[in-house]
Amino acid sequence: MEKDFIALMAQDRALIEAYLSKAFASESRCADLQEAMEYSLLAGGKRIRPILTLETCRLCGGSPEAALPFACAVEMVHTYSLVHDDLPAMDDDELRRGRPTNHVVYGEATAILAGDALLTAAFEQITRAELPAGRIVEAVRCLAKAAGSAGMVGGQALDMAGEGRALDRGELELLQSLKTGALISASAELGCIAAGGTQAQLEQVRAYAQALGQAFQVRDDMLDVTSSESELGKTIGSDQVNEKSTFVSALGLDGCAELVERLTRQGIDALSGFSDNAFHSWLAGMLAQRNR
Amino acid sequence: MEKDFIALMAQDRALIEAYLSKAFASESRCADLQEAMEYSLLAGGKRIRPILTLETCRLCGGSPEAALPFACAVEMVHTYSLVHDDLPAMDDDELRRGRPTNHVVYGEATAILAGDALLTAAFEQITRAELPAGRIVEAVRCLAKAAGSAGMVGGQALDMAGEGRALDRGELELLQSLKTGALISASAELGCIAAGGTQAQLEQVRAYAQALGQAFQVRDDMLDVTSSESELGKTIGSDQVNEKSTFVSALGLDGCAELVERLTRQGIDALSGFSDNAFHSWLAGMLAQRNR
Repeated sequence: MEKDFIALMAQDRALIEAYLSKAFASESRCADLQEAMEYSLLAGGKRIRPILTLETCRLCGGSPEAALPFACAVEMVHTYSLVHDDLPAMDDDELRRGRPTNHVVYGEATAILAGDALLTAAFEQITRAELPAGRIVEAVRCLAKAAGSAGMVGGQALDMAGEGRALDRGELELLQSLKTGALISASAELGCIAAGGTQAQLEQVRAYAQALGQAFQVRDDMLDVTSSESELGKTIGSDQVNEKSTFVSALGLDGCAELVERLTRQGIDALSGFSDNAFHSWLAGMLAQRNR
Repeated sequence: MEKDFIALMAQDRALIEAYLSKAFASESRCADLQEAMEYSLLAGGKRIRPILTLETCRLCGGSPEAALPFACAVEMVHTYSLVHDDLPAMDDDELRRGRPTNHVVYGEATAILAGDALLTAAFEQITRAELPAGRIVEAVRCLAKAAGSAGMVGGQALDMAGEGRALDRGELELLQSLKTGALISASAELGCIAAGGTQAQLEQVRAYAQALGQAFQVRDDMLDVTSSESELGKTIGSDQVNEKSTFVSALGLDGCAELVERLTRQGIDALSGFSDNAFHSWLAGMLAQRNR
């Protein structure tokens, strides 16, 4: 079972990498900008979000290939957010996915523009899906809401505003549900939208992904304390340097482990109405135990 | 005639301001971010782009109100581009629309995020149009292409890359057609798309707007030399400080004046197939002679 799922993820990942590597093939007007975009987009991330889109499309009765443009749009939004979050004016990180961050290699101006262009490209990609126009419009709305001021960007703004001050658990949950949870939730929702799923399915998928997203973030905070840079491929301990409140500072490592377990169970339960939810259950468990 | 057109623009502008001021009303999760977005969005720009959208919708037989979400999306993209272009890592400007630039007031991090959120919001706005889904998808694609690496962001990247080196006229025209022209062209095209215009109409509208956009930019370069900060409401002479090539440095002031006149004529001619093109003709002439 586990072996099959790992193979399935590898297969999805191959589809995603192939699509992403051709996304800007014919567009180059400024070689530097395109190189900077591809530097971060093709840096071999885990691709959890787009895999979630493809497999949630399958879960809801669609073909994963049909959701590929939606999946890659999510990955572009995720990548742009990393590029901008790493900027000197933001978290000022120098290492990401095992390599120097975008602005370290290309300079600040190009990194800002590469992020802008990746975000914009995400919305162009969505329109390339060979799906009914109504579903595409719904996907644009879903992604924009999740990525914007009422979602991811709002979360990053709260994160910056909260530096140097202890956030309580409620504030932290709101912050992370926006900063990380909203886009993970949208990843799954976009799969359901691509499949033409029902409103009830969409709500179940959202409940699953929101629990998964929160568990993911709590685990991330744990790894920032317990892991090493070489394992994680990004600067560790930076939360502490930037005086950021994390789930570890709020709940302790044991409290975090319990929370991850509870959220994972909750996420899996949310999909009990689907007959073939085995992959999604496995994924939730796997992410809860990941070491990088 | 002129008086009627000025009244028409004022009427359009009132629609646009009312729409923009309510765009984020219910979204606030982070007060600072929302304030920064509105600071730049509601700073009383000329609103040329959204007016062009509304009036091109009318030109192509639609109702201007139907195009309002498209029009405001364009203005959000334009505003985000100003916020990011003004950043210290880019043009490092401190004055815009007669007020301190976004990052001067809210800090660099918030300015970057406000720009990101405005860009994202633009795509959400488009989906709010009460129009057939197919037209909304076309509008998303049109705006994303114009704003991204093959359009506006690509132009800004060429602009940054060209600093400190003399660009020839061909390079300058490419740069400006991307940096300024693409979004002005999209403004008009979105109006045609909202109206459900034909492919032939779309091409005529595009030809008009591309000529208009180029004339607009040449005029902008002229004003950067001949105008004062109080007239223009932004830092002047900054092209020279940043060692940027401009149409004035390439053609001289007289050459620029001739070029603006020729482009304006060319733009007006492109719309000769429309029976009621009087507003668009007047607008082209007015922009060619503007002093701010």
